[in-house]
Amino acid sequence: MLFSSSTKGKNLKNTRNNKHYREAPAHNTSVWLYGRHAVLAALSNPNRKKQKLFVTAKPDFDTDSVPVQVVNKGQLEQLLPEGAVHQGLALKADALPSLALEDIAFKDKAVVLVLDQVVDPRNIGAILRSAAAFDAAAVVVADAHAPAETGTLAKAACGALEVVPFVRVNNLSRALETLKKKGFWIYGLDGYATATLSEEKLPAKTAFVLGSEGDGMRRLTTKNCDYTIKLPMSDKVESLNVSNAAAIALYEFYRTK
Amino acid sequence: MLFSSSTKGKNLKNTRNNKHYREAPAHNTSVWLYGRHAVLAALSNPNRKKQKLFVTAKPDFDTDSVPVQVVNKGQLEQLLPEGAVHQGLALKADALPSLALEDIAFKDKAVVLVLDQVVDPRNIGAILRSAAAFDAAAVVVADAHAPAETGTLAKAACGALEVVPFVRVNNLSRALETLKKKGFWIYGLDGYATATLSEEKLPAKTAFVLGSEGDGMRRLTTKNCDYTIKLPMSDKVESLNVSNAAAIALYEFYRTK
Repeated sequence: MLFSSSTKGKNLKNTRNNKHYREAPAHNTSVWLYGRHAVLAALSNPNRKKQKLFVTAKPDFDTDSVPVQVVNKGQLEQLLPEGAVHQGLALKADALPSLALEDIAFKDKAVVLVLDQVVDPRNIGAILRSAAAFDAAAVVVADAHAPAETGTLAKAACGALEVVPFVRVNNLSRALETLKKKGFWIYGLDGYATATLSEEKLPAKTAFVLGSEGDGMRRLTTKNCDYTIKLPMSDKVESLNVSNAAAIALYEFYRTK
Repeated sequence: MLFSSSTKGKNLKNTRNNKHYREAPAHNTSVWLYGRHAVLAALSNPNRKKQKLFVTAKPDFDTDSVPVQVVNKGQLEQLLPEGAVHQGLALKADALPSLALEDIAFKDKAVVLVLDQVVDPRNIGAILRSAAAFDAAAVVVADAHAPAETGTLAKAACGALEVVPFVRVNNLSRALETLKKKGFWIYGLDGYATATLSEEKLPAKTAFVLGSEGDGMRRLTTKNCDYTIKLPMSDKVESLNVSNAAAIALYEFYRTK
């Protein structure tokens, strides 16, 4: 075998000193990252514990933080899921340590995304990428519904998984309460809302809640929002792809702040 | 076999009377559509030639336009690509007849998306969905680079493939010339541009050009743009997912017109 044995339960000690991080749950141990953006961003993330880097050619970047093994394309592809677009690079690493919402020190002007039952790793990856682009302070997902951190998610995030605080919570309603206590106003995106995003003056601390790809927000989640708001759009389709809706909400906050 | 034999070259005559449509190219003959939104939209599209509808339960919608066969879940899944999210519905249909840019009668206020080497069917599907949401007049792709109309694309489009003119062209530069002659101003989205989308007054006829997921626009394409423009964003990532960038550009046009 090319790669080292399981690191379950190991390597988390060095994150304990950072008060933003808590011990990672058991399902969250090792991950394969691939593709140039995802791997380079992971290598330069001090919170990411690297195990081993596999490359098909001598790297043109700094690899001091990780042991490197040169392999051929076929060997690399055996390590990764079928069809993974690796660009000659794969990093075996620990999943990022968990992050608690309570511990994040938000600035006076901040936007947070809360995803209610969004499960597609490519959508979550694209959302993290937009969150980095528009300087979101965190992306929050319910742990039971969200996919584990995977190569697919990290690849779609294009490096953003390493820079955007990605918070898994057990209870989304409680997370919304925490955000309210921290001064956020909660806006649920809902096609049936009467208020329209482009006409609303968003507060300095805004949290957008987006529902699942199929059914939108759960009723309980909607109840816990301060406001519901819709994107202005035609009646030709019912809704946007959830990552597209998230991108627009973040853009609107970024544009107007 | 559950499904009928190939319909290559058949069934196109009834589209000849519609001057917007031209005979479909050979690679563009039959397609499997699945998932509730994609199938229902196809059934209500008069330009879509339906072959046969496969269902796992008696349909709760009008099926006058198509022969129906009830099958079990296993049989349905054998007809479709592995992992297809079918929701109990699959439609075998002809691909849509080709559409020529020259023949489209654009309104005085119109926005068009031009995709340069965007190849991911899920991205193109999500872009079509946003194009429907924000009333885009057409989505243009270079035929050689774009994926054939597939179930994946149609599923991601969530029905929008049936309502947004989707134009395949052989030569993207010539398509941009055609758009200019029809009164459009061509804006290439480019992270290195100096002008910013949110600060620009967009003309009534705007075409946005978006480059590939990896490399952005080709140089020749950039040269053929009237302007280049960037999205306002942080320096934490280089770019957005192409469907997210498209959604924001379309939103900005829709919001300000």
